[in-house]
Amino acid sequence: MIVKHGMNYLTVLNSAINYKLAPPLAVLRRQQFLIRVLGVGGENRMQGSKFEADSDNILRAITPVLDPNRHKGQAGKVAVIGGCREYTGAPYFAAISALKIGADLSHVFCTKDAAPVIKSYSPELIVHPVLEESYSVGDRDKDHISRRVVAEVDKWMERFDCLVVGPGLGRDPFLLDCVSEIIKQARQSNVPVIIDGVFYLIKIFSCSPCFSELFTDGLFLVTNNLGLVSGYPLAILTPNVNEYKRLVQKVLNCEVNDQDAHGQLLSLAKQIGGVTILRKGKCDLISDGEIVKSVSSHGSPRRCGGQGDILSGSVAVFLSWARQLILADEGNLIISPKNPTMLGCIAGSALLRKAASLAFEDRKRSTLTTDIIECLGRSLEDICPAC
Amino acid sequence: MIVKHGMNYLTVLNSAINYKLAPPLAVLRRQQFLIRVLGVGGENRMQGSKFEADSDNILRAITPVLDPNRHKGQAGKVAVIGGCREYTGAPYFAAISALKIGADLSHVFCTKDAAPVIKSYSPELIVHPVLEESYSVGDRDKDHISRRVVAEVDKWMERFDCLVVGPGLGRDPFLLDCVSEIIKQARQSNVPVIIDGVFYLIKIFSCSPCFSELFTDGLFLVTNNLGLVSGYPLAILTPNVNEYKRLVQKVLNCEVNDQDAHGQLLSLAKQIGGVTILRKGKCDLISDGEIVKSVSSHGSPRRCGGQGDILSGSVAVFLSWARQLILADEGNLIISPKNPTMLGCIAGSALLRKAASLAFEDRKRSTLTTDIIECLGRSLEDICPAC
Repeated sequence: MIVKHGMNYLTVLNSAINYKLAPPLAVLRRQQFLIRVLGVGGENRMQGSKFEADSDNILRAITPVLDPNRHKGQAGKVAVIGGCREYTGAPYFAAISALKIGADLSHVFCTKDAAPVIKSYSPELIVHPVLEESYSVGDRDKDHISRRVVAEVDKWMERFDCLVVGPGLGRDPFLLDCVSEIIKQARQSNVPVIIDGVFYLIKIFSCSPCFSELFTDGLFLVTNNLGLVSGYPLAILTPNVNEYKRLVQKVLNCEVNDQDAHGQLLSLAKQIGGVTILRKGKCDLISDGEIVKSVSSHGSPRRCGGQGDILSGSVAVFLSWARQLILADEGNLIISPKNPTMLGCIAGSALLRKAASLAFEDRKRSTLTTDIIECLGRSLEDICPAC
Repeated sequence: MIVKHGMNYLTVLNSAINYKLAPPLAVLRRQQFLIRVLGVGGENRMQGSKFEADSDNILRAITPVLDPNRHKGQAGKVAVIGGCREYTGAPYFAAISALKIGADLSHVFCTKDAAPVIKSYSPELIVHPVLEESYSVGDRDKDHISRRVVAEVDKWMERFDCLVVGPGLGRDPFLLDCVSEIIKQARQSNVPVIIDGVFYLIKIFSCSPCFSELFTDGLFLVTNNLGLVSGYPLAILTPNVNEYKRLVQKVLNCEVNDQDAHGQLLSLAKQIGGVTILRKGKCDLISDGEIVKSVSSHGSPRRCGGQGDILSGSVAVFLSWARQLILADEGNLIISPKNPTMLGCIAGSALLRKAASLAFEDRKRSTLTTDIIECLGRSLEDICPAC
């Protein structure tokens, strides 16, 4: 809410215009901000359009009722694969967001260097120091260390409701090779996978010596890389502007077309075998190759790093809940769409936007990702009261 | 309190039903939640039954008066044996909970990897990096390192009022071998031991080479493992749903019978030589093989990981206080039961439930274990004011 204490938009605008004592520049900036955020002038064309998801009702429908008879783990067990020598914040943001929304257990699989730091951010997370980067692995040891890393994650795999791959993973070739194997194991075990940073999909196979000879051109490279998730209906990609541009270029062999954003996203998701794509932007667009939905509720104009990590952790929880609900066929699900990955993306996107908006209302320009995480609980409570 | 601001259950229910603007799903979910939590329809049969412990009065009776003449350590010295490369949150939760309730000193004995992280969570804890995992111990060194580890803990043993074994201990065979020796030392020194995670009891001896040849079947294995604590009246086991199921199967050679939950728990505790068992669940059931008591006051419907660790740390403090009181034979103890392990379990269970309830009232779905820990002090103050 940016219009406070019973004031509507026009009241605010008029008071700003008529406010003789204010410097003209401040008035102008405030008008411009209000016009931008409130979408006056038709900028938010998506909101209210036929594509706009009924996100609040979806969120309410898939969020499980809190039941004292349930035991630990039944509200969700999520794992984040990420965290290396350089990046430790991103996997923490994703994993703690999952807990703050209501998951019971949140694991992080990261490198040995990253583990003590991520652990120190919060005692709530279970952090496994099992990943390895090239600098700590001799050439002769690569095979058996790779097998050990994959086995370390795989022994937990069946317990997880969703895997988030990517936050703070870095670009180390050996590490990415291992992660490609982990994605394969997840797929074999039918565990949903959210790939945050499509870069990894492009990078993973190009770094793998056994596949490098195949990469004669970019398109071939990407389509082969995407083979990791292509045709897997429980996979979600969450590209940002640049990643989306690259995906479109490589998969559809054309440039991004914002005049037909919906049609192009639909084609892209279909082309990658029906994975779900959440195209992040001012308005989030989501498609599984069958339908397209948008979420364009107000968020925050702050673009501090880490919001994508909150999103991936949030989507993981909502996807798990939606899948549980659909698998249990409870309550003759009256919501649409029915695909749990679509539902997870819609709910995750809507919740992040609301939390970001609340955090911005309080912190303005100094809003940080941790402030937004602190608003996740209140946002969920506003939309879907626990009792 | 889930019914707020002077509203009673019917007011809430009627307002939900009559709230025309709310989506029917939300109303339904609210009704379902209230019915479940408030126990309408006789679901909370245990509460108010002859088995229900008089937990608030017990808690008040065993909590010592704060006396300026007492010195450091007299209000309790607790040690947690746990914390390894993977798990650092659990021992922290147990140890800090003990302090927050009123213990004077709280120690953690963990591995070298875990120690700096646990220390970083709080400067209040005394953290000993003395445990070792297999990966850091060569075969030839195992014997003398094991002796060293056990001696490192044993030199502190007589100072402790209670040992909590298990939070974040992991499953390393060498580590569990050492811990089995530590339990023996505690028993020899007559120090109470709370085993959190009965898994360890099952695992400890099965990993020990000298006993492995004995394990021809599961029942033999478990009854032998339980020999570590069997017949020790100062031992407490705190099984969750799955651990309890496994215990019943192995010790009583049958399935869990919820129709006769009290009788079965009584038999189980008796069969293990009169140890006290706290069966965690929607309603906590506690027996020492002589009597059974239940604690079913409202807690929180959130099942985030770590609440069991708060419980074990809390029981450790209350057990210490109850034992002090009984040993001093102060005030012609008028409460029942008289067994300090039973009293500790009842008080610990009741306090955790109250703290979880307060935390949930504030944080709802985003309630985490650290939020509950922050409510321990207020909960104790509500039941038993310090002055």
